[in-house]
Amino acid sequence: MLTTHPFDDDKLKEECGVFGVYNVDDAAAMTALGLHALQHRGQEAAGITSFDGNEFHTHRALGHVAGNFDQEEVIGRLKGRMAAGHVRYSTSGGTSLRNVQPLYADLSVGGFAVAHNGNISNAEKLRKELVRRGSIFQSTSDTEVIIHLVATSGFRTLLDRLIDALKQVEGAYSLICMTNEGMIVCRDPLGIRPLVMGKLDDGNYIFASETVALDIVGAEYIRSVEPGEMIVASHNGLTSHHPFPKQPSRPCIFEHVYFSRPDSIVNGSSVYSVRKAIGAVLAEEIPVEADYVIPVPDSGTPAALGYAEAANIPFELGIIRSHYVGRTFIQPGDGVRHLGVKLKHNANKPLVEGKRIILVDDSIVRGTTSLKIVQMMREAGAAEVHMRIASPPTSHSCFYGVDTPEREKLLASRFTVEEMCDFIQADSLGFISIDGLYRATGEKERNQAQPQHCDACFTGCYPTTLTDLDEVEQPNQLKLLNEQVVRSERT
Amino acid sequence: MLTTHPFDDDKLKEECGVFGVYNVDDAAAMTALGLHALQHRGQEAAGITSFDGNEFHTHRALGHVAGNFDQEEVIGRLKGRMAAGHVRYSTSGGTSLRNVQPLYADLSVGGFAVAHNGNISNAEKLRKELVRRGSIFQSTSDTEVIIHLVATSGFRTLLDRLIDALKQVEGAYSLICMTNEGMIVCRDPLGIRPLVMGKLDDGNYIFASETVALDIVGAEYIRSVEPGEMIVASHNGLTSHHPFPKQPSRPCIFEHVYFSRPDSIVNGSSVYSVRKAIGAVLAEEIPVEADYVIPVPDSGTPAALGYAEAANIPFELGIIRSHYVGRTFIQPGDGVRHLGVKLKHNANKPLVEGKRIILVDDSIVRGTTSLKIVQMMREAGAAEVHMRIASPPTSHSCFYGVDTPEREKLLASRFTVEEMCDFIQADSLGFISIDGLYRATGEKERNQAQPQHCDACFTGCYPTTLTDLDEVEQPNQLKLLNEQVVRSERT
Amino acid sequence: MLTTHPFDDDKLKEECGVFGVYNVDDAAAMTALGLHALQHRGQEAAGITSFDGNEFHTHRALGHVAGNFDQEEVIGRLKGRMAAGHVRYSTSGGTSLRNVQPLYADLSVGGFAVAHNGNISNAEKLRKELVRRGSIFQSTSDTEVIIHLVATSGFRTLLDRLIDALKQVEGAYSLICMTNEGMIVCRDPLGIRPLVMGKLDDGNYIFASETVALDIVGAEYIRSVEPGEMIVASHNGLTSHHPFPKQPSRPCIFEHVYFSRPDSIVNGSSVYSVRKAIGAVLAEEIPVEADYVIPVPDSGTPAALGYAEAANIPFELGIIRSHYVGRTFIQPGDGVRHLGVKLKHNANKPLVEGKRIILVDDSIVRGTTSLKIVQMMREAGAAEVHMRIASPPTSHSCFYGVDTPEREKLLASRFTVEEMCDFIQADSLGFISIDGLYRATGEKERNQAQPQHCDACFTGCYPTTLTDLDEVEQPNQLKLLNEQVVRSERT
Amino acid sequence: MLTTHPFDDDKLKEECGVFGVYNVDDAAAMTALGLHALQHRGQEAAGITSFDGNEFHTHRALGHVAGNFDQEEVIGRLKGRMAAGHVRYSTSGGTSLRNVQPLYADLSVGGFAVAHNGNISNAEKLRKELVRRGSIFQSTSDTEVIIHLVATSGFRTLLDRLIDALKQVEGAYSLICMTNEGMIVCRDPLGIRPLVMGKLDDGNYIFASETVALDIVGAEYIRSVEPGEMIVASHNGLTSHHPFPKQPSRPCIFEHVYFSRPDSIVNGSSVYSVRKAIGAVLAEEIPVEADYVIPVPDSGTPAALGYAEAANIPFELGIIRSHYVGRTFIQPGDGVRHLGVKLKHNANKPLVEGKRIILVDDSIVRGTTSLKIVQMMREAGAAEVHMRIASPPTSHSCFYGVDTPEREKLLASRFTVEEMCDFIQADSLGFISIDGLYRATGEKERNQAQPQHCDACFTGCYPTTLTDLDEVEQPNQLKLLNEQVVRSERT
Repeated sequence: MLTTHPFDDDKLKEECGVFGVYNVDDAAAMTALGLHALQHRGQEAAGITSFDGNEFHTHRALGHVAGNFDQEEVIGRLKGRMAAGHVRYSTSGGTSLRNVQPLYADLSVGGFAVAHNGNISNAEKLRKELVRRGSIFQSTSDTEVIIHLVATSGFRTLLDRLIDALKQVEGAYSLICMTNEGMIVCRDPLGIRPLVMGKLDDGNYIFASETVALDIVGAEYIRSVEPGEMIVASHNGLTSHHPFPKQPSRPCIFEHVYFSRPDSIVNGSSVYSVRKAIGAVLAEEIPVEADYVIPVPDSGTPAALGYAEAANIPFELGIIRSHYVGRTFIQPGDGVRHLGVKLKHNANKPLVEGKRIILVDDSIVRGTTSLKIVQMMREAGAAEVHMRIASPPTSHSCFYGVDTPEREKLLASRFTVEEMCDFIQADSLGFISIDGLYRATGEKERNQAQPQHCDACFTGCYPTTLTDLDEVEQPNQLKLLNEQVVRSERT
Repeated sequence: MLTTHPFDDDKLKEECGVFGVYNVDDAAAMTALGLHALQHRGQEAAGITSFDGNEFHTHRALGHVAGNFDQEEVIGRLKGRMAAGHVRYSTSGGTSLRNVQPLYADLSVGGFAVAHNGNISNAEKLRKELVRRGSIFQSTSDTEVIIHLVATSGFRTLLDRLIDALKQVEGAYSLICMTNEGMIVCRDPLGIRPLVMGKLDDGNYIFASETVALDIVGAEYIRSVEPGEMIVASHNGLTSHHPFPKQPSRPCIFEHVYFSRPDSIVNGSSVYSVRKAIGAVLAEEIPVEADYVIPVPDSGTPAALGYAEAANIPFELGIIRSHYVGRTFIQPGDGVRHLGVKLKHNANKPLVEGKRIILVDDSIVRGTTSLKIVQMMREAGAAEVHMRIASPPTSHSCFYGVDTPEREKLLASRFTVEEMCDFIQADSLGFISIDGLYRATGEKERNQAQPQHCDACFTGCYPTTLTDLDEVEQPNQLKLLNEQVVRSERT
Repeated sequence: MLTTHPFDDDKLKEECGVFGVYNVDDAAAMTALGLHALQHRGQEAAGITSFDGNEFHTHRALGHVAGNFDQEEVIGRLKGRMAAGHVRYSTSGGTSLRNVQPLYADLSVGGFAVAHNGNISNAEKLRKELVRRGSIFQSTSDTEVIIHLVATSGFRTLLDRLIDALKQVEGAYSLICMTNEGMIVCRDPLGIRPLVMGKLDDGNYIFASETVALDIVGAEYIRSVEPGEMIVASHNGLTSHHPFPKQPSRPCIFEHVYFSRPDSIVNGSSVYSVRKAIGAVLAEEIPVEADYVIPVPDSGTPAALGYAEAANIPFELGIIRSHYVGRTFIQPGDGVRHLGVKLKHNANKPLVEGKRIILVDDSIVRGTTSLKIVQMMREAGAAEVHMRIASPPTSHSCFYGVDTPEREKLLASRFTVEEMCDFIQADSLGFISIDGLYRATGEKERNQAQPQHCDACFTGCYPTTLTDLDEVEQPNQLKLLNEQVVRSERT
Repeated sequence: MLTTHPFDDDKLKEECGVFGVYNVDDAAAMTALGLHALQHRGQEAAGITSFDGNEFHTHRALGHVAGNFDQEEVIGRLKGRMAAGHVRYSTSGGTSLRNVQPLYADLSVGGFAVAHNGNISNAEKLRKELVRRGSIFQSTSDTEVIIHLVATSGFRTLLDRLIDALKQVEGAYSLICMTNEGMIVCRDPLGIRPLVMGKLDDGNYIFASETVALDIVGAEYIRSVEPGEMIVASHNGLTSHHPFPKQPSRPCIFEHVYFSRPDSIVNGSSVYSVRKAIGAVLAEEIPVEADYVIPVPDSGTPAALGYAEAANIPFELGIIRSHYVGRTFIQPGDGVRHLGVKLKHNANKPLVEGKRIILVDDSIVRGTTSLKIVQMMREAGAAEVHMRIASPPTSHSCFYGVDTPEREKLLASRFTVEEMCDFIQADSLGFISIDGLYRATGEKERNQAQPQHCDACFTGCYPTTLTDLDEVEQPNQLKLLNEQVVRSERT
C-alpha cells in the first residue's frame, strides 16, 4: 500500500477528523479540501457523503484524500449543497472499506449519515443488546452503534431519535450527521474531541475538527461547538440544543501538545503559541547549559523555538527531515538493515560536531525513536545530548479516539524518568510537569479535584466510566504529579 | 498518477540524481536507499541496474523510489555486488519508461549501463549524425547519444570508447557507468553538476550526487570526484584518469541556494552554513525594520535563520506547511477555485496579525507563488510584508540539467526589481547581490573575468557553447551585476 | 471491466448459481471449482463463504470465478471444511460488491450466511416493514430480506427462525445457508429453481444448482433436493424436513431449453437428450425442404442435431463462433460501426453459398440477434434461410430469478409469428408448440389445469402471486397454446 | 495475468497474426477488429502502429485485443488512415512489452514500422554481426534484425533497403511494413506463412494473415499475396515486385489442420471443407465399428463431422466444452488436485454410458491431453474408446513461427503409434497418412522429391537451412511416410 505515514511510528495517533458543509455550491469539493487540511488526523481512509435534495451519494476510499477525492469524476458524482466527510486512522479491525465513514443507513424516516471523531466506551455492550434484538451490523466500527440506536428508537423525529441514542452512549464524540432535512452536529457533554463552526457567507455553515479546515476553504471562524451542544442546520437556519445535563468540560489537552496543527485555534487559543509557551516553561523548569537548541522536526519545532528564546541559546536545524519524500520507504534486504539507516531524518553533521545540544520533542511513547535520534546525534559528533519533552510522561492508554499502544508498551508506564534517560542514552532527560503544561495552556495550574482537561494519558484520570474495558484498569496513583522537577541526569 | 510534488511548481527543478556502489553485499538495496536520499533531485521516475558477475539486471519505474524500489521482489531480482541508480525529473518528452535511466545496451564488448546527471548541449547534432550512419535510438534522452557513440567507436576497450565518446560531447555530465569489468564514473571538465565519492570499508566504493546519500547508508565521505576526472573501480582497485585538457572548474552555484539538501556537503562546504551566511549577507545588504523574520518553508528556512540572527529580529513560524500531506491535491470543481485556497501553506494567523514581517525565500522564478504568499500574509492581517530573496534575480534559462521555464516566463527577465516588487505586491523586495552570494560561498567576490562558478541563470554567462540552441541566445549584459543594493521599496 | 459475456446480449439470463460442501478438506477450493462449472449461470460476480469451526471467512469479487477464486492467497484465507458459494448475474441495482452473495450476518445466535438462486416476489413489501421496525439493510438484494426475517424472528433456533422467515416469503428460492452448526439447504415449495445433492464419500455432502458442478469435483450425484424440502447437514448427519404444505411442483421448463448446461441432468433427465428431442419434435411439427441444418452456436447445437437426424438433412457448421476470444470486444470508433461487423460469429461462406439452410436456435427474445444472423447468412450467399426455434415464443417476463427484458421488449409480446418472421427477414420461421415442448421433456402434453412446469415466460401463467408487481399484470389468454403449428411462411 | 488460453496447453501454437490497412478512415479501429478476428494466432500481446501523415503512433499491450484495443482513448490516439497491427504468442524470452510488435525505428530516411509473422532462422548470426558493427538492439525479437539491416543498408530508398535486408534473411516471414510513403507487404519466397489481400473499396487495401480478418471488417477478398512477392501501397496505387529468385512454394500444411480458423480460405481452399475431407479420408484409412463419432471440441469438430458422414455413424456431442468460461482457471489447493478435475471439458455421461465411441482430434503433441480425455470418457462409462487423429504424427519441431515443444517432448518423436496408443490408453489409435493429408488438401499425393507444402513437423523435411540451430538436427528418415495404415490396435 502506498499510504503515507509522515508521522513517526512512535507517536500517538489521532483517529479521526470530520468536516461538514451546509448550503453551499460544490459541497463535496469543499469537503474534500477540508478533509485535506485535516489529513494529519487520519491517513488510512477517507469518505464523503453528499445530499442533493433527493438522494445521498457516498464515496469511500482507502488512502489519502489527495489521489482519491481530487478527481473530477469522484467529486462530480457527489452532488448536492450539503456534504460531510471523514478521515480515519484505523485501529484494530483492519482497514476494511466497511469501516470507513461516513456511515449511512436508509431508515424508515429517511436516509441518515454520520461521521464521528472520538470513541464510544460502551459500544460493545450496546452492540450485543442491539444484535440480541435483531439488528444486523455491517461494520466493526463503534460508530455503527449510534445508527442502530437511532434506527430502533421509539421516537418519531430523527432529532429525538439521535438524542435518545446519544443518551445511551458513553465516551467521546464529535459528530456530523446528515438527514434529508439538514445537518445535525453534536459534541459529547465533556467536549473531549474538538469541533468548530464557521461560515463562508450568511446562510451557510461549516463544521470541522480544526480551524485549519476553515482556513483552506477561506471560511470565517465563528466559535467552537460547545460541549454537550447539538446544532441543527436546516432551511429554518441554525438552532442550538443542549439535550444533556450540564457538566464541566474536559477537552483533550494532547490536542495542544501534538495532534492539532500549529496553525489551528483549539479551545480558543493558538496551538502554536501554546507550544511556544510549553517550550518556555520547559526551559524554566529544567534548564541545562548547551550550545544549541535543536528541534526534533517537525512537531518539536515550536516548543524548541520557545525553549531557545527563554533560555537564550541559539536555535539551529541540527536534524534535517526528508520533506521531499511523500512515501514511507520500506527498507528492503536484511543485509542493509544493520546499517544505522536514517530514512526520515539525517543529522546536520557539520553543525553539531563537537557541540552540546538540547533536543526538544513533543512526547515519548515507546521511546524507540528517541533512542535512535540520540544515537544519530552522537554518531554525528555531538558532545552532549540533552532531551527535553514538551509533555509529561505518557503513561496511560487513551480510550477516547486516540491510538495508543497497550499500556505496557508505553515507556513511562514501566520506567522512572531516570530509567527512561538511560534507555534513550541521553545525557539528561526532562519532561514538562503537568502543572507546567496547564500553565502553558493558560490555566493557573491543574485543578486536582476537577481537572480542566482530559489528561488521562498522563494521569490515568479518566473522565468517564469505561464500560467495555474488560478488567477496569485501576488508575494509578499519579506518581509524577507532585514531583517538583521531572528530570534526570545521566551520570 | 500519484507522484508527489513537494516542491512548489514555481521552483527550478534539478533534473537528476545518481548513485553507484561497487563491491558490496546487497548492492541494489543500498542503491535504493541512496536514491531515496536523493529523491529531491528527481521525483518522476527511478531506475536501478545491477551486475551479478554474469548478467545485468534492470528495473525502472515511474514514480518514487519508495513504493517501487523498497519491495523485496524488485530488489531480489537486482542481484549482484555492483549497482547504479538514477532518479529523474523528466522534462519535455514525457515520462515514458523508455527515458528512465540507467540506460543499458548489449555492445559487442559486453553490457554497458549508464546513469547521467546533467545535460548534453550538442545532443541533437550528434544524434542526427548517428542516425544517418544507421544507429537506432530507443529513447528521446540526450544520454542515449553517449551509448551510441560508445557502441560505434573504433576503439577497442570500453574505457577508450567512453573517452572517445565524451570528447565529442559538450555540456554537463556526472556519469556512473557499469561494464562487466567494473564501474566507471566521470565528471565533465567544468564540474558543473556535483559528484562525490565515499566508502563503507576498504575495497568498496560509493559514488553519489550528494553526501546525504552516503549518510543514509552509513558510508564515509572521501572527496568530490574532480572536474574532468574519470575513475575506474574494478578488481584492480581504483584508478583515476584525467583524459580531458585541464581548465578552471565552474560548479553550479545554485546547488548551494536551493538544489542540494541542507545537510549535504557540496564542493567542500556545508550547504546549511552557506545558506545561513546568505541570510546574514542579505540582512546586511538590504535591511528593513520589522517584528518577525518568517521563512517561506522549507527551503527558505536556513537563510531566514541567518537573516534573523544577523538582524536581531525574532524568527517565527508564520507559515505552516502541510508536512502531513504526501500527495499533491488536485483541486476539483471550478466552483471552489475562486476561493483563495492554500493547499500546501497556511498562514499562522494569530501570530502575524498586525505585525510587520520579513519573508525569506530562496528564489523567484515566475513570481506566481511569491504573489500568493504575500497575499496570504496580508489576508492573515500582516501590517507590512517585506520579501527577501536568497539569490540574485533568476533571469536566464539553464541548459545543464536544470528544468527552467522559457526565458520569457522568468519574472526577472522581464521586470526590474521595482516592477517585480509591484508584481508580488510586497512592501519591499530585495535580492542578494551576485557578489554577496559569492561571498556567502566563501569567495571574496565574483571573478568577473573567470567566474568561480556556473552562475548562468543569474548572469547569462554560459561556460560552454550551446550547439543545439537554435538561435544562440546572446547573453545579456548583466544588468544587475554592479548594482550596489538590489532592492526596491514600494511606495 | 473485463467481464466476459459469452452469451449473446439477446438471451434470457439465469441470475444465479449456488454450490455448497459440507465436511470436506479444501472446502473453499472445491467450491471454487463448483462455481467455475456453474459460471454460465452468473458471470458478473462471485463469492464464497467458509466456516472453520470458529469463524466465517468471506471473499467476494466482481468478475469471473477464474481470475478471482483460483488464487492461492484467496483460497488460503477461506479456511474450513464447510463452504458455500454463489455466482451472480446482477440485474438492475448495479454490480455493487454489497449485493454479491453469500450474504452474511452476525446474529445473536451466531453467524449466518446465505446463498440464494431465485427471486422473492414480495421482497419489497417485507423490506418496508422490516425497516419500519428498525432493521438496516446493507444491500439492495431481495435475499437480504431473508436474513433480517431470521434476525428478528421470535424463534430460538436458527432452523426454526429460517422456517419462520421462509413462510413469509413468496417466489422462487434454492438456498444454501451456513450456521456454526452446519449447512441448511432448501428449495421453495414449487421447486422452481433446480438444486441437486451429491457426495464424494460417506459423511460429506455437496449441493449445487446443476450436476455439472458435481462432475467437476468428481462427486457422485444422489438426487434432486425436493420442492419444499429443507435438508440439514450437521455432525448428526443429514436430516430432511418438509416444513411447508405439500403442493404439486412447477420446475422451470426453460432450464431444459437454454439455462442448464447440456451435460447436466435436470429434474432427472439429460439436458442434451431433451434438447435433441426438441429438435426432433420441431422437425416433425414444422418441416421444410433444405440443403443443410445449421446450428446457431452454441446453444442451438443439440436441437439442430436432433432436427437434422429427424429430417434427414445434413448437419453442417455454417456459422463459426469465435471461441478463441475470451473477452467482449467493445467496438471502437463510430467510423467502423456502419460496417456489418461480426464480432462473435462469422458465416462459413464457402459452405453456405447458394444453399437453402435451416437455422436452429434456442429462443427469440428481442429478435435483434436473429435478424443479424439471418442477414449474415444472406450476405454469405444463402439461397433460403429458414429459422426454427427450440422453444415457444417468449412473451412474458420472468419474476423468479431470470433476467428478462420488460415485456414490451419481447418480440413475441408485440408480434404474431408471421410478423416476427418478417422482422427477422427469414424465409420461414417456426417455433415448437408448448405441447411439443412438454412432449420433448417426457410428458404426454401440458396439463392445462395444473401445468407440470413453470412455463410463465411462454404462457403468462405464473405459479405464485406477484405481490411487489405494482400493477398486477393480467396473464394474457395464452394465445399460442392451442395453435397446432406455430409457424409462418414468408411470401 | 488474466490472459485467456482457450487452446489446450497441449497444442501447437501459431506465433503471430498480422493485419494492415492502407487509405481508410478509422484505420486503427479497423486494425483492432482485424486483430480481434486473428486473436487465435497469438494471445499474449498485441500492438498497433498508425501513421497520420506526419507522425507514427504506437500502442502495445500484453493481453488480448479486446480489453486493450477497444477503448476509445487508445484508438483515439492512433490517428491516421494507415495502420498495421500484430498479435503475438510469445515464446521464450518472456512477454516483455519490448518484444511486442509492430517494432518501430526512426531511421535517417524516416520512420519505419514492421509487423512480422514467421521466424527468421539465421537471426542470431545476423544479430551478432550487427552488434559488432555498433547496432544496439532493443528487444530479443528476431524481427529486430530486419530493422537494423534496413537502418544500416547502403541503399538509398526504404524499398531498396528492405530488399537488401530480406536477401540476407533466411526462414519464414509474412511482413507488413509502414513508411511515411506507404505500406510495404512481403511474403518469403517459400510462402511458408499465409498472407492475403482484400479491399473495402477501390483505392484502399487490406492485408491480413487470414480471410476471417477481411470478413470482420466487411472487406472483399482479392487474393493471396504470392510467395516471394513484395507489394507497395502508396499514393501511386499498388505495385507488385518479385525481388527474389523464383522457387516452388511450400506453404505450411498445418494451417489447414489446426492453426487457421475453419471459416478462413487458406491457399485458395476452405479450411472447413479440407478438415471435413481429412475426416472422410481418415474414416477410409482407419475404420472401426462404433456407436458414435465424438469430436474433441472445438478443433476436432469438422473432421469428426467428415468422419461420421463417411463412416455413416451418428455424430454426437459427447464432450461438452465450457464455452462460457473466458478465463483459465488455475486450480487452487493441493487437496483438490488429486480429483480427476475437468476444467475445460466434461463428458456427456448420459450419452456415452455403455457406448463404443470414436474420438476425433486434430493432432497429438505431448499426448497428455489425449490421455486425460480418454480417461474421462472411460470414467463416464464408454465401452470402447477409439482415437482418430486428423494429422500424421507430429514428430519434429517447427522453426518457422510455430511454438513446438522441444523434440524429445513430442510423443511421436519417442514412440511408435502402438506405444502412443498404449500411452493414451485408447482401444485403438489411428493417424491420417501424410499422403492422405495431401489428398484432403486437393493434391493427388505428396510429391516426395519436391513436396507441395512445408510438412517438416511431420516429416522433418525442412525447406530452408537452419543456421542458428546449434547442432543441426539431422532430419530423421521419415519413418511413417510409407506406412500404408498409420494405426494400432490395443490388445
